[in-house]
Amino acid sequence: MNNPATGTFAVSSGRKGGRNNSGRCTTMDRWLAQKILHALGDPPLRIVLWGGGAVSEVGSSPDITMIIHDRGTLWRFLVNPLLHFGDDYSAGRIEIEGGLVRYMEVVYRSMAATPRFRQNSDSAAYRRNQPNLNTLLGARKNIHHHYDIGNDFYRLWLDTEMQYTCAYFSTPDASLDDAQIAKMELICRKLGLRSGQTVVEAGCGWGALARHMAGKYGVTVKAYNISREQITHARQRAGAEGVAGRVEYIEDDYRTITGRCDVFVSVGMLEHVGPDHYQELGGVIDRTLTEQGVGLIQTIGQNRATPMSPWFLKRMFPGSYPPTLREMMAIFETRDFTVLDVENLRLHYAKTCEQWLDRYEQNLDQVRKMFDETFIRAWRLYLSGCIANFNIGSLQLFQVLFARSGNNLLPWTRDRYLNPPLEP
Amino acid sequence: MNNPATGTFAVSSGRKGGRNNSGRCTTMDRWLAQKILHALGDPPLRIVLWGGGAVSEVGSSPDITMIIHDRGTLWRFLVNPLLHFGDDYSAGRIEIEGGLVRYMEVVYRSMAATPRFRQNSDSAAYRRNQPNLNTLLGARKNIHHHYDIGNDFYRLWLDTEMQYTCAYFSTPDASLDDAQIAKMELICRKLGLRSGQTVVEAGCGWGALARHMAGKYGVTVKAYNISREQITHARQRAGAEGVAGRVEYIEDDYRTITGRCDVFVSVGMLEHVGPDHYQELGGVIDRTLTEQGVGLIQTIGQNRATPMSPWFLKRMFPGSYPPTLREMMAIFETRDFTVLDVENLRLHYAKTCEQWLDRYEQNLDQVRKMFDETFIRAWRLYLSGCIANFNIGSLQLFQVLFARSGNNLLPWTRDRYLNPPLEP
Repeated sequence: MNNPATGTFAVSSGRKGGRNNSGRCTTMDRWLAQKILHALGDPPLRIVLWGGGAVSEVGSSPDITMIIHDRGTLWRFLVNPLLHFGDDYSAGRIEIEGGLVRYMEVVYRSMAATPRFRQNSDSAAYRRNQPNLNTLLGARKNIHHHYDIGNDFYRLWLDTEMQYTCAYFSTPDASLDDAQIAKMELICRKLGLRSGQTVVEAGCGWGALARHMAGKYGVTVKAYNISREQITHARQRAGAEGVAGRVEYIEDDYRTITGRCDVFVSVGMLEHVGPDHYQELGGVIDRTLTEQGVGLIQTIGQNRATPMSPWFLKRMFPGSYPPTLREMMAIFETRDFTVLDVENLRLHYAKTCEQWLDRYEQNLDQVRKMFDETFIRAWRLYLSGCIANFNIGSLQLFQVLFARSGNNLLPWTRDRYLNPPLEP
Repeated sequence: MNNPATGTFAVSSGRKGGRNNSGRCTTMDRWLAQKILHALGDPPLRIVLWGGGAVSEVGSSPDITMIIHDRGTLWRFLVNPLLHFGDDYSAGRIEIEGGLVRYMEVVYRSMAATPRFRQNSDSAAYRRNQPNLNTLLGARKNIHHHYDIGNDFYRLWLDTEMQYTCAYFSTPDASLDDAQIAKMELICRKLGLRSGQTVVEAGCGWGALARHMAGKYGVTVKAYNISREQITHARQRAGAEGVAGRVEYIEDDYRTITGRCDVFVSVGMLEHVGPDHYQELGGVIDRTLTEQGVGLIQTIGQNRATPMSPWFLKRMFPGSYPPTLREMMAIFETRDFTVLDVENLRLHYAKTCEQWLDRYEQNLDQVRKMFDETFIRAWRLYLSGCIANFNIGSLQLFQVLFARSGNNLLPWTRDRYLNPPLEP
């Protein structure tokens, strides 16, 4: 099977069972594997060691198997599973049978119930494992690491408008393209966009939302982003779509935003801001938004302040952190903004990531022309891990609508959010 | 005019201009009045002192006038306006012309912009001015103070179902009765009630929501309340409506809740719990709610942690505090609950209080048979102050829907919240 959510993977690099220098696995190796299972909270999982020594059938449905190909991998896993599993899986030294997403769901769920891994939720959780806390220069490096690896790569598995954030599936079987358009519409309706308004977007990705707002709602958008690759694409598309006169893409940090706007919007940027800078972001919004303006922030979040895994921070998103709602309030409280509406779209993000992973797997031949097998496996792991974390509730997706405290020109009910969009 | 939102009051107790022992007002008195205006942030307000010495016409529209009837009142106002205005207004030693709600809107707005009154938002704000922090016994005293003054009094100005919490006006011109039913419906739809489910309600008031849930949705409700008067009424009504077999009203504190339930709901109780007890409340919900259960808390809130005024705490609601969203998260975070949805109904509560005040003024003859003029003026001030605080955004109204972290049996979109209610 090709789909890691349900099937197994063919490992095409790294060492396989029997072809390594560890010799046959020993009683000690099997004892260590047993220890690992126990340390993870005894998830329903089978570990198979090199040479075929099946270790354990803990739990009621051990149809998920982790194959560890050599002794070094076993030891590394024991020392720091959160870091080394990722690298060893990427290198093909670990294989999962029975579904990578399912593997991560059972392991994460088990770890979440295990005191050793259930770290105290604290206000500095995000700092752990962080090499770089998003200074102006650090943020640029962090963003470059993930987003500037090639638009052609992202084009293979994102929707046609290249939106790398949670979609909104009005029904569970909606297509990804439709769900991404529905997401933009939902945001525009919550914000109550009217022709002639000015919008500032902080962190615009490949620029789809800004173009949608300008093209469909007749607003003028200044969209900020520090990913050069994304800005390049965004400008090209704005020109092709004939909205370049109403959308300005600015290659700069959100902290440099100037001028005033009727609407502030940020989708999928807060994950890269870091809680140290939330009050600063609140200050940017405060100096930018008009008195009757409204704003919306969409971000990955979590229920308890927990640091990202070291592998995720090192290989995927350095500087990233998904806030709790409590932490997010630092943006709003000190400036007396009012939170009008919070919608949690967690399961929509699980579905979005499933769609991305499906398309990624379907286009592996193309990906292989760009990257090596380690990269391919790392990204499979990353996308599978996102699905698992959204499915089990370790990650959330918050859309937060806000306005200034005294703004009484607001819609009376939510009906407008769900009604067909206004025409420009 | 009878309506204090737009008109003036006939003062029928206390001292009036010219009939006091202060003599004519002096230059010093006028200077102090000027000081008061300045200390309040120079709101557009005129002060008239005993003997007719109009003091000031600060601002652009000084059509709101505060008449101070004697020197003692002037001095008390200078010392502690937040405490003494309430008592002196209630006693008739202060009168307001131009609308009591408007007076409080301009004064509160002005004070909010004045550093002296803009206290630092801190985690212990709620403790200031609090004689009593809601121990089991203290909470009972605090609730008795406000809610046990007579069901006949509340019947004069609440809706027919006697709901003393924010209504939901599907359109701005809906009637109070309709809006209170719509509020119950909105809550039931958000909770996705199904026949046969068990519900725990913490703080049930006169019991309308519990009866509505049982009667319309076929659920079984255990409803807790420590106001004896309210419980007595609630039981009578349940018997009359034929739902006594499915609704049990329990005269006890939320901390004594036992058993399990599919749904936890609390409307207008959190204001009386106090932030010291939010984690404890989270623990009660955690031990009560089933794995796939959902919950909803409706509460008055605020944007920044600010203590209630000493007058409000002393005369109206001892032990009360409306939390910020940040503070509310203490209920959910430590138990790994997921916030699914937050709706801010601030302007609905302004409208609810307007309707209450209208009905209160219309039934003054009846109120006069129960209470003296000081009481009547105090309650006018209280209801007017609520309107003003909701109108200017000093108070919010949050409806927070939540579930356990791993609950994936949730509605896909919000459509269900707005659709016509399910039939039992």
